[in-house]
Amino acid sequence: MAVRAAVAGASGYAGGELLRLLLVHPEVEIGALTGNSNAGQRLGALQPHLMPLADRVLEPTTAEALAGHDVVFLALPHGQSAAVAEQLGPDVLVVDMGADFRLKDAADWEKFYGSEHAGTWPYGLPELPGARADLAGSKRIAVPGCYPTAVSLALFPAYAAGLAEAEAVIVAASGTSGAGKAPKPNLLGSEVMGSMSPYGVGGVHRHTPEMIQNLSAAAGAPVTVSFTPTLAPMPRGILATCSAKATEGVTAESVRAAYEKAYADEPFVHLLPEGQWPATAAVYGSNAVQIQVAYDEAAGRVIVISAIDNLTKGTAGGALQSMNIALGLPEELGLSTIGVAP
Amino acid sequence: MAVRAAVAGASGYAGGELLRLLLVHPEVEIGALTGNSNAGQRLGALQPHLMPLADRVLEPTTAEALAGHDVVFLALPHGQSAAVAEQLGPDVLVVDMGADFRLKDAADWEKFYGSEHAGTWPYGLPELPGARADLAGSKRIAVPGCYPTAVSLALFPAYAAGLAEAEAVIVAASGTSGAGKAPKPNLLGSEVMGSMSPYGVGGVHRHTPEMIQNLSAAAGAPVTVSFTPTLAPMPRGILATCSAKATEGVTAESVRAAYEKAYADEPFVHLLPEGQWPATAAVYGSNAVQIQVAYDEAAGRVIVISAIDNLTKGTAGGALQSMNIALGLPEELGLSTIGVAP
Amino acid sequence: MAVRAAVAGASGYAGGELLRLLLVHPEVEIGALTGNSNAGQRLGALQPHLMPLADRVLEPTTAEALAGHDVVFLALPHGQSAAVAEQLGPDVLVVDMGADFRLKDAADWEKFYGSEHAGTWPYGLPELPGARADLAGSKRIAVPGCYPTAVSLALFPAYAAGLAEAEAVIVAASGTSGAGKAPKPNLLGSEVMGSMSPYGVGGVHRHTPEMIQNLSAAAGAPVTVSFTPTLAPMPRGILATCSAKATEGVTAESVRAAYEKAYADEPFVHLLPEGQWPATAAVYGSNAVQIQVAYDEAAGRVIVISAIDNLTKGTAGGALQSMNIALGLPEELGLSTIGVAP
Amino acid sequence: MAVRAAVAGASGYAGGELLRLLLVHPEVEIGALTGNSNAGQRLGALQPHLMPLADRVLEPTTAEALAGHDVVFLALPHGQSAAVAEQLGPDVLVVDMGADFRLKDAADWEKFYGSEHAGTWPYGLPELPGARADLAGSKRIAVPGCYPTAVSLALFPAYAAGLAEAEAVIVAASGTSGAGKAPKPNLLGSEVMGSMSPYGVGGVHRHTPEMIQNLSAAAGAPVTVSFTPTLAPMPRGILATCSAKATEGVTAESVRAAYEKAYADEPFVHLLPEGQWPATAAVYGSNAVQIQVAYDEAAGRVIVISAIDNLTKGTAGGALQSMNIALGLPEELGLSTIGVAP
Repeated sequence: MAVRAAVAGASGYAGGELLRLLLVHPEVEIGALTGNSNAGQRLGALQPHLMPLADRVLEPTTAEALAGHDVVFLALPHGQSAAVAEQLGPDVLVVDMGADFRLKDAADWEKFYGSEHAGTWPYGLPELPGARADLAGSKRIAVPGCYPTAVSLALFPAYAAGLAEAEAVIVAASGTSGAGKAPKPNLLGSEVMGSMSPYGVGGVHRHTPEMIQNLSAAAGAPVTVSFTPTLAPMPRGILATCSAKATEGVTAESVRAAYEKAYADEPFVHLLPEGQWPATAAVYGSNAVQIQVAYDEAAGRVIVISAIDNLTKGTAGGALQSMNIALGLPEELGLSTIGVAP
Repeated sequence: MAVRAAVAGASGYAGGELLRLLLVHPEVEIGALTGNSNAGQRLGALQPHLMPLADRVLEPTTAEALAGHDVVFLALPHGQSAAVAEQLGPDVLVVDMGADFRLKDAADWEKFYGSEHAGTWPYGLPELPGARADLAGSKRIAVPGCYPTAVSLALFPAYAAGLAEAEAVIVAASGTSGAGKAPKPNLLGSEVMGSMSPYGVGGVHRHTPEMIQNLSAAAGAPVTVSFTPTLAPMPRGILATCSAKATEGVTAESVRAAYEKAYADEPFVHLLPEGQWPATAAVYGSNAVQIQVAYDEAAGRVIVISAIDNLTKGTAGGALQSMNIALGLPEELGLSTIGVAP
Repeated sequence: MAVRAAVAGASGYAGGELLRLLLVHPEVEIGALTGNSNAGQRLGALQPHLMPLADRVLEPTTAEALAGHDVVFLALPHGQSAAVAEQLGPDVLVVDMGADFRLKDAADWEKFYGSEHAGTWPYGLPELPGARADLAGSKRIAVPGCYPTAVSLALFPAYAAGLAEAEAVIVAASGTSGAGKAPKPNLLGSEVMGSMSPYGVGGVHRHTPEMIQNLSAAAGAPVTVSFTPTLAPMPRGILATCSAKATEGVTAESVRAAYEKAYADEPFVHLLPEGQWPATAAVYGSNAVQIQVAYDEAAGRVIVISAIDNLTKGTAGGALQSMNIALGLPEELGLSTIGVAP
Repeated sequence: MAVRAAVAGASGYAGGELLRLLLVHPEVEIGALTGNSNAGQRLGALQPHLMPLADRVLEPTTAEALAGHDVVFLALPHGQSAAVAEQLGPDVLVVDMGADFRLKDAADWEKFYGSEHAGTWPYGLPELPGARADLAGSKRIAVPGCYPTAVSLALFPAYAAGLAEAEAVIVAASGTSGAGKAPKPNLLGSEVMGSMSPYGVGGVHRHTPEMIQNLSAAAGAPVTVSFTPTLAPMPRGILATCSAKATEGVTAESVRAAYEKAYADEPFVHLLPEGQWPATAAVYGSNAVQIQVAYDEAAGRVIVISAIDNLTKGTAGGALQSMNIALGLPEELGLSTIGVAP
């Protein structure tokens, strides 16, 4: 008995990646595909890599089009998910790949997004403490942001184990697909190839409060986050370099032990052997997270570096992993830790 | 009842891609993995994207290591396959991803490779006329070169249908993985990023006689090939721009009709709708071939452009497709036309 | 006594490259900089690499703004140059980097551009026979297209020397800056990185009649051109692979001799030593053309490959080289054959 | 009266970039070019972008070859410069682009380089307090490392102005040319394109003590540095994201004011207007440093981001700038803040 899934926002990068994964998910049947400005177009013209779906035509995003599915994935601009979810009713699993339901604090939402807070849904980062219980059986899932996925998985074990002081410093490099498919001059290939540049510097990036929320929960106390995102000349991938002052008594061994323990049974988190470092190329197209830790004794800091594919584990893969849990399917179904390289 | 497969040369790009595909092939169990200079190393250090195999250790390439498998894939430097195949015996399916057994003409081999011809095996390009019959039940398969795959699929229908004169002109761009993993100064990232350059110009590239062999067979008469390969700043992919003088009476419609007919039932060849052109990004990591045709009336030429992933359809995917046929499995098993993009 | 130069269209890629070169031209003083949608903006925000001009503000493109200069460069969408030139009067040197005045045949213009032909100006490719005489003292210059620059310099010596039959086949790869700075989805970094794709296939690219014009002039008879442009994952550069059937009696030596003779005294054309091939990285940011020739005996074709920087020799550098000639300055002034690599 | 300059190590990336700049330096005449394994080869084969020098042949690196020049630039592996410098005598200006003479503390040298300390030469980062006085008239110059150039210029004003606490956290992304031209598997284009990865994590990178030396001098007290370098998929450029806890009373205005003051008269440091961020593409091939500052009030940190070209300002341009000072030439001679973009 297949799970019938609809995708609202099938023409963008998140929607396309989700379809790529749904096509090989053994329990999912792909239902309605909707879009806004692209409604009426063949998917083959919009997502030419999804050849089995080339002849599917996008419908407009309406309640009618999305009705009659077991799961509806929303890949919409923020602010639109609440209304759609309401129309779909409480019995349909709604997986929001946007930001609307990630934050618990309404004030944070209003400060960073400038609109009214729509609410909070179970948070789709299963590796966080307690997350699987929240997701099991849930009919609503808020998929985390791509940066918070990479950063939270890098740092929460250090905070949970009391290894790190409450001031995290994070610099992350993202591939350009994180900026979406809407054409802007600064995202032209001519501009991004050969260039690294920062943006949203100084605590203004919208993913910052989400990181604070996750790390503070792990620490059991408020954690500040200095977050600098940078745009890297590659289509996909996030490399997050995360550090914090080590608490007293920390050693290289205690850091490693904490991460080995935290991730011993996690199917998608790959703590690398000592001496090997994460690379975004190694997780390209996969749901894996590569992590490595270091303790810099001279600087007194714990350093954790993670690599994910922003579109897979950072968006569509994470969404599917959480869907599997919510539906009672095996968590790894349709997902893998096999990257496409070189 | 799983097919047990060994891979000789598991540390290179062809071997790594094959393992990526074997990991998701429902009927294959991965057996021995061997290497030469890398024997003794963890696969995780050599192929960090293949996380499920990270703890496997490479054995030296010996007859003992390769014994006891149903299929042995050879990803070895040319000249080494014959000796290995002999040791494996006639009942093991040997799939050679190198050049040794591709050419029918010993003189061609000697001219282009400078050594004695080892022989000719059934040629693993199932889409060519007669190829599936040769492959079915065979215990030996010669996997085509990556360029000949892209070029033969682009042009053989034109020759088979009598649309093109016997002088083909081909310019192809390849990603750098086609040049292998052995470090050379001209393949450094610093050198290749931002640069296009040709190599092997003037008919000297070793894939030239293989193209001539395939196209002449399709035409039923000798075809000359002017082939210029170029190195493009991307890891994977081949874009082949192929043309020939049109024979008399050819029209845009007759060209398109010939290709629609040739590829109507081919699972991996995707003749694009008119107005859409192949892109290597669209076939990244997939076994698909994207093809588009044009008739340039002013110049009097038929132009056919194909895009493949040189490592997938161009090497490891093509190898698996042929293995499926040889073993009597469904031809598409474990393969797809779903690319990883953007 | 400095030459005072204005640039209309200073915010685009052609305009930016021209300014980069004008900044180091010893006889030029940069005057008015104009734009349309970007008028009123600081150049530092539009062309952040031109730091000496960061505080200059773009004016609207009007006859008033452009008045009072010795030279006015036009980097405008096609169809706009004639009106501007007329307003500037006959005594100002007007250098049009657009297409309007390149073609001699009004019917060609109408067929490929769909509007009325504005006329023909002296053609700014000094290396072509007779071009320098046309440019000397001229007050109007039509700067060639980037592809025609690369292709004409590759093939005209073969035609002038009678080495090639009248059917040229050309496949060229261009960096993305050739497609301009206006944001379009297919030009996003996410789309172009890792991808090669063709466009304008089958004789429909607007640079085709310009190539035909140049090669036919060299041959003294009509030459047909099959031209396939492809988009390569790099910001700059054109690699043109050009070939034609060799006429009777041609040898590798006679081909080389013709090119050595043609380019013995050309300051910007660098015929590479045998065994070395052009690379776009080697001409990055320079006004050089790298050329290599081959004779493929088996296929009976002369093959010539050229590499240029599409923005420098292909546009702004070529414009300056012609300006120097028109003004009676040393042709090489302010230009070089020094690339920026790696 | 030209300055006659020799370059030892002319086949590598640092040597090539130096030659690119020397070719346009109005007071320099290029003398001997030497190499080791490449001695006897044409420069055209090794540095194909330097067409004016294509026919020069590399000599072996010997005292004889380097004798008779006013300036000798050393682009040698570390540990070799002292012996060469001694042979050249005290009257020749020796500019070492390697690491040998950068560090003041012999223990630091021994810890990070594992050999005996050769000494300390005047440090070629003119923008640091007191540096120009040390360089003027000097016959020995130690050119800074590329990362320390980017990082020291980003952070020294904050330390000099007392705005930052003594624990700096730095994450920097470098283009691949920083890793040199010796072919290694991890530097292949196939490996680096599409990938971001860290290396030398945890305080072990050899540039760390150099940063500590510079920042501690600015602060007048020991500063710790947590430095994480990452390899980015681009040939050139460094983007350094640097931060430290703000001292009490710091505001966004006081941070900006300190940097405006520090860099008001620096010809190569370009403090960007508020709202604009550095990009490595904007400094490609130029001697410019782009800097932007932010104060993250929530995290309590001063954040400074700098972009340089690692080969120009980070190596060869910095070397020339210091040479100009040492020889009493105008500091900007032969250098510019004009990048090559896009």
